[in-house]
Amino acid sequence: MTGIDDLPVRDELRGKSPYGAPQLDVPVRLNTNENPYPLPEPLVERIAERVRAAARDLNRYPDRDAVELRTRLAEYLTRTAGHPVGPANVWAANGSNEVIQQLLQAFGGPGRTAIGFEPSYSMHGLIARSTGTGWISGPRDDDFTVDLAAARRAIAEHRPDVVFVTTPNNPTGNAVPPETVLALYEAAQAAKPSMVVVDEAYVEFSHGDSLLPLLAGRPHLVVSRTMSKAFGAAGLRLGYLAADPAVVDAVQLVRLPYHLSAVTQATALAALEHTDTLLGYVEQLKAERDRLVAELRAIGYDVTESDANFVQFGRFADAHDAWRRILDRGVLVRDNGVPGWLRVTAGTPQENDAFLDAVRELKKEQSS
Amino acid sequence: MTGIDDLPVRDELRGKSPYGAPQLDVPVRLNTNENPYPLPEPLVERIAERVRAAARDLNRYPDRDAVELRTRLAEYLTRTAGHPVGPANVWAANGSNEVIQQLLQAFGGPGRTAIGFEPSYSMHGLIARSTGTGWISGPRDDDFTVDLAAARRAIAEHRPDVVFVTTPNNPTGNAVPPETVLALYEAAQAAKPSMVVVDEAYVEFSHGDSLLPLLAGRPHLVVSRTMSKAFGAAGLRLGYLAADPAVVDAVQLVRLPYHLSAVTQATALAALEHTDTLLGYVEQLKAERDRLVAELRAIGYDVTESDANFVQFGRFADAHDAWRRILDRGVLVRDNGVPGWLRVTAGTPQENDAFLDAVRELKKEQSS
Repeated sequence: MTGIDDLPVRDELRGKSPYGAPQLDVPVRLNTNENPYPLPEPLVERIAERVRAAARDLNRYPDRDAVELRTRLAEYLTRTAGHPVGPANVWAANGSNEVIQQLLQAFGGPGRTAIGFEPSYSMHGLIARSTGTGWISGPRDDDFTVDLAAARRAIAEHRPDVVFVTTPNNPTGNAVPPETVLALYEAAQAAKPSMVVVDEAYVEFSHGDSLLPLLAGRPHLVVSRTMSKAFGAAGLRLGYLAADPAVVDAVQLVRLPYHLSAVTQATALAALEHTDTLLGYVEQLKAERDRLVAELRAIGYDVTESDANFVQFGRFADAHDAWRRILDRGVLVRDNGVPGWLRVTAGTPQENDAFLDAVRELKKEQSS
Repeated sequence: MTGIDDLPVRDELRGKSPYGAPQLDVPVRLNTNENPYPLPEPLVERIAERVRAAARDLNRYPDRDAVELRTRLAEYLTRTAGHPVGPANVWAANGSNEVIQQLLQAFGGPGRTAIGFEPSYSMHGLIARSTGTGWISGPRDDDFTVDLAAARRAIAEHRPDVVFVTTPNNPTGNAVPPETVLALYEAAQAAKPSMVVVDEAYVEFSHGDSLLPLLAGRPHLVVSRTMSKAFGAAGLRLGYLAADPAVVDAVQLVRLPYHLSAVTQATALAALEHTDTLLGYVEQLKAERDRLVAELRAIGYDVTESDANFVQFGRFADAHDAWRRILDRGVLVRDNGVPGWLRVTAGTPQENDAFLDAVRELKKEQSS
């Protein structure tokens, strides 16, 4: 039988495994930061209606520039972030992963490098690899904050072409203060100049504000977003960015033509009509997230401050063993490979209760 | 105002324009090889139904491996190409462009090269560029056939990592004989060994058979397909490939996780339930394609043999001027930049009549 190694694959792919959390059939799944609330039924009906209309024209290519969708996304950003954004500032793709891939194809790639401050969203480094961009693992402190002095030194030393700042950060949950992001932007401009990509996938769950207003006067700044989390639409795969219109022009040089299907555009447009309802779920999840933080601390766990829809907790002598023991109790959390720590997504109150019961028992087990 | 050149974009992107045919509002659009027949209403309803069901679970990530879809695609291939194919042989992505991008990320990329025999589907070369793969423009004869001796010399000289063979070829319409494809495969193995990608986007319109049976015993061969043309679903963006399971494993190392949305999977599954109806439209389009060839020749044009849903015709002293004159008569065809030639998509009988009237007048104008 032929295996991957019998094929002329690129050397750096040999021995690698595909990215992805285990998809296990477990009663309580709190491992991939999904929104636990299904879309409300009126929105489901509206999606069916919009997709039916799109299907009548499905023999034609979709709007290559997704103008209506970008217009509605711009309105959403303007309304929620208090910073005026127009369709020319916005670009959408199949998940924020594809947004990041397009950014690295345009501004990274062979002979160029990108940096992220790790642990962070591991796809940044993986997409760097698959686009031929050199990857630099920048530092975080032991408490998972970005140490500005150390980060500046790394930027000055490596002069990366692309700087990723994930805030709120995944998998740790904490946000990067706006003044730190600004200082990193200045450092990146002084060093190269380079593009700074602020990954705000979880920003709707934050105690603080979006960094969107920082875009004014900073053409090398990009804010990336997703509908997977706050809009409860992980299955839709709709990521987007806001930036100077020149950045949008640049990614159009590398985007695959007609990359965004007519059904994806129709479904996203339907979801954007129901923004207020969906943001109501976000408020419930923020309260649940805060409850998880408080109760985990009460049980005796260390918890990283969270501005996301998930919580990092520890410390464990053997995090993977703890992950397994929680799974044995019917609750799937995530072992992101951060030594001593695990990550739990804020689910429904019932799911969170089941999780808290499991880790309470685990604590007793490990203390006895 | 900031322009692309004020950004730190990759040097090879400077001065480039995004790929894409002009999207003009014209009565008869025969420029992008779309299927002119809208999906039948029962299929539209089935899509709405399947998407409604998928939307109820849209807060969850989609099936990352698209198992049901790959199973149905495998069944379709097995039934229509007379070669047994299973889900492990099939991979699907957002359009055949994304399939090709993933193949080049796995088997091409920095320090590697790919070859195509041009004029051919120009995205092969453009995706090579955006993935950092060196591009070699291989030769075709003046009549647009692949000259085996010349092609073999090019492969032996350049030792490409990936060889593209588009059959039926776009934009010329002619097929590459199976024995030529086999000989190119052997030449590519002798030179490197390299992967050979047979792009069969238009194969359902061919007088001949799919090359799928050649996969047996050839782990370096890949056949790529699309639902854009024969399935009348350009708006869906669903491309797929068939190959040795090891190739499917390899592209999973570079695919973006959850790249294929739940609504795309649901829509494609609905379309596959209506295969027989859609293939009936294909038969009508083949007859119209043959009529276009015959009538264009009767008018006095040169026509390249076509196994696709489009026809290349000429010759024009100034093809772009001829394109404009046809457009002035309300018919949009495609100027693919092949000197002396234009391409017209087979539309409905009425659309084709309008086109034939236009080029009949053009012929009179240019003969007088």
